[in-house]
Amino acid sequence: MEGKPGKGKAASSDNAVREKLEEFGKSIVNEIYRGENPKFVTSVRSRSNVLYDPKGGYLHLGPAQEERNFINISQSRKFMQTVAIASKCSSFVKENLHTSIRGLFYQLKYSLGEDVDENIFSEQSESNPLIEDLESSLGVRREDLNLSADRKGFLAGNMRIIDKFGGEKLEIDASKQGRSGFPIPSDVDNGIEFVDVKAKYVLVVEKDAVWQRLNEDGFWKKENAILITPKGQASRGTRRMIRKLSDLGLPVYVFNDCDAWGWYIYWTIKTGSMNLAYLGKDMATPEARFLGVTMSDIEHYDFLGKLTMKASEVDIKRAQEMLSYPWINKHKEWVEELKKVLKTKTKLEQDTLQGPKLTFLGDYVREKIRNNEFLP
Amino acid sequence: MEGKPGKGKAASSDNAVREKLEEFGKSIVNEIYRGENPKFVTSVRSRSNVLYDPKGGYLHLGPAQEERNFINISQSRKFMQTVAIASKCSSFVKENLHTSIRGLFYQLKYSLGEDVDENIFSEQSESNPLIEDLESSLGVRREDLNLSADRKGFLAGNMRIIDKFGGEKLEIDASKQGRSGFPIPSDVDNGIEFVDVKAKYVLVVEKDAVWQRLNEDGFWKKENAILITPKGQASRGTRRMIRKLSDLGLPVYVFNDCDAWGWYIYWTIKTGSMNLAYLGKDMATPEARFLGVTMSDIEHYDFLGKLTMKASEVDIKRAQEMLSYPWINKHKEWVEELKKVLKTKTKLEQDTLQGPKLTFLGDYVREKIRNNEFLP
Repeated sequence: MEGKPGKGKAASSDNAVREKLEEFGKSIVNEIYRGENPKFVTSVRSRSNVLYDPKGGYLHLGPAQEERNFINISQSRKFMQTVAIASKCSSFVKENLHTSIRGLFYQLKYSLGEDVDENIFSEQSESNPLIEDLESSLGVRREDLNLSADRKGFLAGNMRIIDKFGGEKLEIDASKQGRSGFPIPSDVDNGIEFVDVKAKYVLVVEKDAVWQRLNEDGFWKKENAILITPKGQASRGTRRMIRKLSDLGLPVYVFNDCDAWGWYIYWTIKTGSMNLAYLGKDMATPEARFLGVTMSDIEHYDFLGKLTMKASEVDIKRAQEMLSYPWINKHKEWVEELKKVLKTKTKLEQDTLQGPKLTFLGDYVREKIRNNEFLP
Repeated sequence: MEGKPGKGKAASSDNAVREKLEEFGKSIVNEIYRGENPKFVTSVRSRSNVLYDPKGGYLHLGPAQEERNFINISQSRKFMQTVAIASKCSSFVKENLHTSIRGLFYQLKYSLGEDVDENIFSEQSESNPLIEDLESSLGVRREDLNLSADRKGFLAGNMRIIDKFGGEKLEIDASKQGRSGFPIPSDVDNGIEFVDVKAKYVLVVEKDAVWQRLNEDGFWKKENAILITPKGQASRGTRRMIRKLSDLGLPVYVFNDCDAWGWYIYWTIKTGSMNLAYLGKDMATPEARFLGVTMSDIEHYDFLGKLTMKASEVDIKRAQEMLSYPWINKHKEWVEELKKVLKTKTKLEQDTLQGPKLTFLGDYVREKIRNNEFLP
């Protein structure tokens, strides 16, 4: 079977996924009937095949592909395992039931375990990359195969969520979720819709504590913004959510710490990560801008001088690494920023902005947006 | 000032907290006016003062107390710092604004930083234990001082949440939150109410992936249960939530992995943790029962035999440790369970129950509850 890997284009409906899975199976069966060596094609996902699209502004896989053959001593086990995964996922999609990749692992371990005295999988680390093979080969996302990923992140703002769930059509108003906010689910594409998005922009804040602070201040209400926290590194669901809001034409501003972790979270949202490069633009929001905190904030806001911290070795190493990435060092603003870090060996947390008064966090964001002061 | 530490009794309203903070301040001021050495009393929170209440079934602090004096070379810095924390929290409560303990740390670092060339705090590790001193001394919880803790955990079921937030009185129906569920907030006591709790019992499941599976199956709807996941170790908010639901007379069943982490999560929910022993019964639900997974499940359900894992060194060490705790080894069922772990050196995840079919998870829970098969 010839897959269409690397496109990162999601199947638009359960039916489309079902067809792709059936096509995958049929193609292998036909090859067997024809006496051919059963095979399928997937993209090479190693670093050497991760490319940056300078026009689109995101990471994706290059043209290198791999063929997986059944009659090949080094591949037949993996081939069998991938087919078993596809078969399980096909059942999940037909039954309309979801599970985690851990749940899938135990289903696989169990199903062959009954008749055969050989474990189809002994460790989950064996099944995980094969799920990626399948995503890449079929041109679908894991979530389309009814495999949930870890969920994380919250949202508040003037928009509604229509969730077809448990035979009901539920409506959740993201402006009425109080202190808690709306928790961003694992899958924000299948059976769920985001409607009446009446906001001017999206503000993503790294830390939940900062999100809670801004939520309490009614920041998103006053500003008419969608306020999101990924709560650290953005989950797949949160990255998709940000992508979808950007697709509606909303500017996306990211407000993180000025340190290794904060930058990493930003660039993962913006260009996608190397690990998920096979999903391409689906997992990237190149339109995102970095609002802060930045090294130049220290010069601008006097009080910050006292509140900086010593950059750790990790921060320094990360800053050096980032300067070597072409998609980062092409921006002179980022080169300047990172060089300041290397020179002063300091870092700065977004929480520091609460130093003078708790509500200064919001004032800071407003000033940045008003002055159009972002890093690219 | 003579505090009332170790009671773990929460202040019932903002006013009560405000009064306690004012009393704390006034008492110190009066001591200064009287020419006395300003002081306050707090409980000793070291392990030696952590006791188990065999009647109540929870961990709490013993009678050992410490006096903190200002005119004492080894205490004056800490004394000054604690007073600064109390003063900040007093402002937060008056202004009705919340922040994280990181936010508090930066406020403290900033406020003295202006006039004095000495840092009031250099590390957050310095301010954290002093917040606990204050909680313990005033007999309030951090949340009552408007200091948010990390939030984690989700809930679904037939109940409503009334959240007085941002000048509104919001109503959230926990049976209409779809795939996402209601995210349990940091503070479930102040300005928030849980009403119309129409459920037969509370089921707590360790893993969010298992929660999502059961939620998809409509488990809580069919069973009329409140379905909670702490998503690993239970946050303060989630522990309080479980305590409050238990106070309404609902049985609480905990469904975790059969390993070091799963047991730890259970016992923390049940007896409270040593670290938070100063909050006593507020953070414990001694009424909780352990539903599974257990070592005897392996004998009962044939298919599990193939799906066990080798216990790690951590699991073995933890099982041995648990056997030494009087509040655990007083239960012969737990002694038996842990000895089986030590003998067979195996462990078992709750996810394994999806092996034969995804919906078996719910069948398992139902069978356990029907047969009243719990560990104490």
